[in-house]
Amino acid sequence: MTRIGIIGYGNLGRGVESAIRQNDDMELVAVFTRRDPSTLTIKSQGVKVDSVDNVADYQGKIDVMILCGGSATDLPKQTPEYAKLFNVVDSFDTHANIPAHFANVDKSCKENNHVGLISCGWDPGMFSLMRLYGNAFLPDGADYTFWGKGVSQGHSDAVRRIKGVKNAKQYTIPVEAALEAVRSGSNPELTTRQKHTRECFVVLEDGADAKAIEKEICEMPNYFADYDTTVHFIDEEEFNKNHSGIPHGGFVIRSGKTGWDLEDTHVVEYSIKLDSNPGFTSSIIVSFARAVDRLSKEGVSGAKTVFDIAPAYLINKSDEDIRAHLL
Amino acid sequence: MTRIGIIGYGNLGRGVESAIRQNDDMELVAVFTRRDPSTLTIKSQGVKVDSVDNVADYQGKIDVMILCGGSATDLPKQTPEYAKLFNVVDSFDTHANIPAHFANVDKSCKENNHVGLISCGWDPGMFSLMRLYGNAFLPDGADYTFWGKGVSQGHSDAVRRIKGVKNAKQYTIPVEAALEAVRSGSNPELTTRQKHTRECFVVLEDGADAKAIEKEICEMPNYFADYDTTVHFIDEEEFNKNHSGIPHGGFVIRSGKTGWDLEDTHVVEYSIKLDSNPGFTSSIIVSFARAVDRLSKEGVSGAKTVFDIAPAYLINKSDEDIRAHLL
Repeated sequence: MTRIGIIGYGNLGRGVESAIRQNDDMELVAVFTRRDPSTLTIKSQGVKVDSVDNVADYQGKIDVMILCGGSATDLPKQTPEYAKLFNVVDSFDTHANIPAHFANVDKSCKENNHVGLISCGWDPGMFSLMRLYGNAFLPDGADYTFWGKGVSQGHSDAVRRIKGVKNAKQYTIPVEAALEAVRSGSNPELTTRQKHTRECFVVLEDGADAKAIEKEICEMPNYFADYDTTVHFIDEEEFNKNHSGIPHGGFVIRSGKTGWDLEDTHVVEYSIKLDSNPGFTSSIIVSFARAVDRLSKEGVSGAKTVFDIAPAYLINKSDEDIRAHLL
Repeated sequence: MTRIGIIGYGNLGRGVESAIRQNDDMELVAVFTRRDPSTLTIKSQGVKVDSVDNVADYQGKIDVMILCGGSATDLPKQTPEYAKLFNVVDSFDTHANIPAHFANVDKSCKENNHVGLISCGWDPGMFSLMRLYGNAFLPDGADYTFWGKGVSQGHSDAVRRIKGVKNAKQYTIPVEAALEAVRSGSNPELTTRQKHTRECFVVLEDGADAKAIEKEICEMPNYFADYDTTVHFIDEEEFNKNHSGIPHGGFVIRSGKTGWDLEDTHVVEYSIKLDSNPGFTSSIIVSFARAVDRLSKEGVSGAKTVFDIAPAYLINKSDEDIRAHLL
């Protein structure tokens, strides 16, 4: 059994709790919160809810601590800190800061003989693996990542911060014509605007100026200005009925050439269609937590990424079984 | 540099030769043949062609020997034999015999301190990896493998063996309706006939009975009887013009559920579209040869499969580089 702890009980923490239930070699030991633990009810029967302040008491009782905080402020501090006490897995997704985060986690892990796997999930995560396999197998080529159709939390938050907006959800949508151009193997150069469109569903406060808010959204730098954006104003009932889920999806496509004169073209496409973004992300995280536990028990230490994990470590089946049935 | 030898110079061997040319950390040392070496001309300038009988002379000069023989009779003997002398990679693809082949190669490798990676390519190979990732991340689900549209060498050979057939090519084609049913996430049960159709292009000998040959193809047990098969009779000119390539493709789809009550459905799809089956296969093999060389230099020995290889070992880039640019 791999004994798991969860720090943070938002969408991702709840997803991890459910994923553990689907894997009979995994056991949830405790959920840790920064709130008063008595105010938090979790779904798992007989599992402790405790304060993060008491986390050190669980050394030796938890094999892997899964960190379900945010990448902006939580994980840069939490992952190196908790890697002193436990093997850890996080889903740190600020791509530009991965090298610095890796170095911090690696130091904590090596000094304390732990394994710390960072940036786990689907992007970074499974999409990263597909980019790596694509680059390795087709070195003369190009790769393309498309996201969606799905909810971007950051863009939804940005719309919600506008004065006069009561609630909002933003969908990122890949442009079908761009996907088709990439699938043709022609390795097109695509601008930001050509790859994705953005669609917003907005509930206004009473008396808000729809026209002005639409303009403010569409011209917002970094978030919307470089995209073709559509804004729909809807009432709260429709919002709750049709826009309360967190679906997502995406595509990684590698196209490249082989042959003595590079005469043959190949296109490799990986795509996902998810009812629940945190549901799939947490399911991947739990698989990698299994790998972290196995590596740690083999005496490995240090920071790792999905690139460092041999696939056989991820699955609750023996090597003989996977060679006989999955190879 | 990883110094490579090739045993066998058919489609796959020629593909490996081209793939080495695309990777500046790989060097082709020699191609070995069972024929008289003076009768074989290869594309690479200044690379030795030698008899397989002299292969032992190359110990210490070749880091990884890539075995490009067939799975029926060559590889079951060759891989364990050459694993005594070298690190080896093969593309053994008789799924049912993989456990026995693995055991034989493992014994040779461990006794001689070599690494032997078996069953490399796209199926078994990259498709196997996608099945493993799918099963690990979505344990409550089902997976589906479709092949094509592409040339099945075994089925083409079977048609060519029929009396009165001068030449033939067989394409395996996935049924679009089956693909769509799987993509819907409904986890359908599909029969052999529902998943693939088969299409044959046949050139007849003068005076052959087309009607009788069509019947013989369509009723051939194991190869065609369980499928809806279409037979086209064409002349040699059209055959050479439109059916001389070896394209292939395929799909691995995993659909599964997550959530506390398994309320969310996810569909993950991996697909490939190849101008040249041996071109892509050999490109994958060369990546795994790089991994085999690295593992061997770390002191690892024994038989391995694609499941045992951490992805970072496959690519000609540093760990820092892939974390910064592909993660």
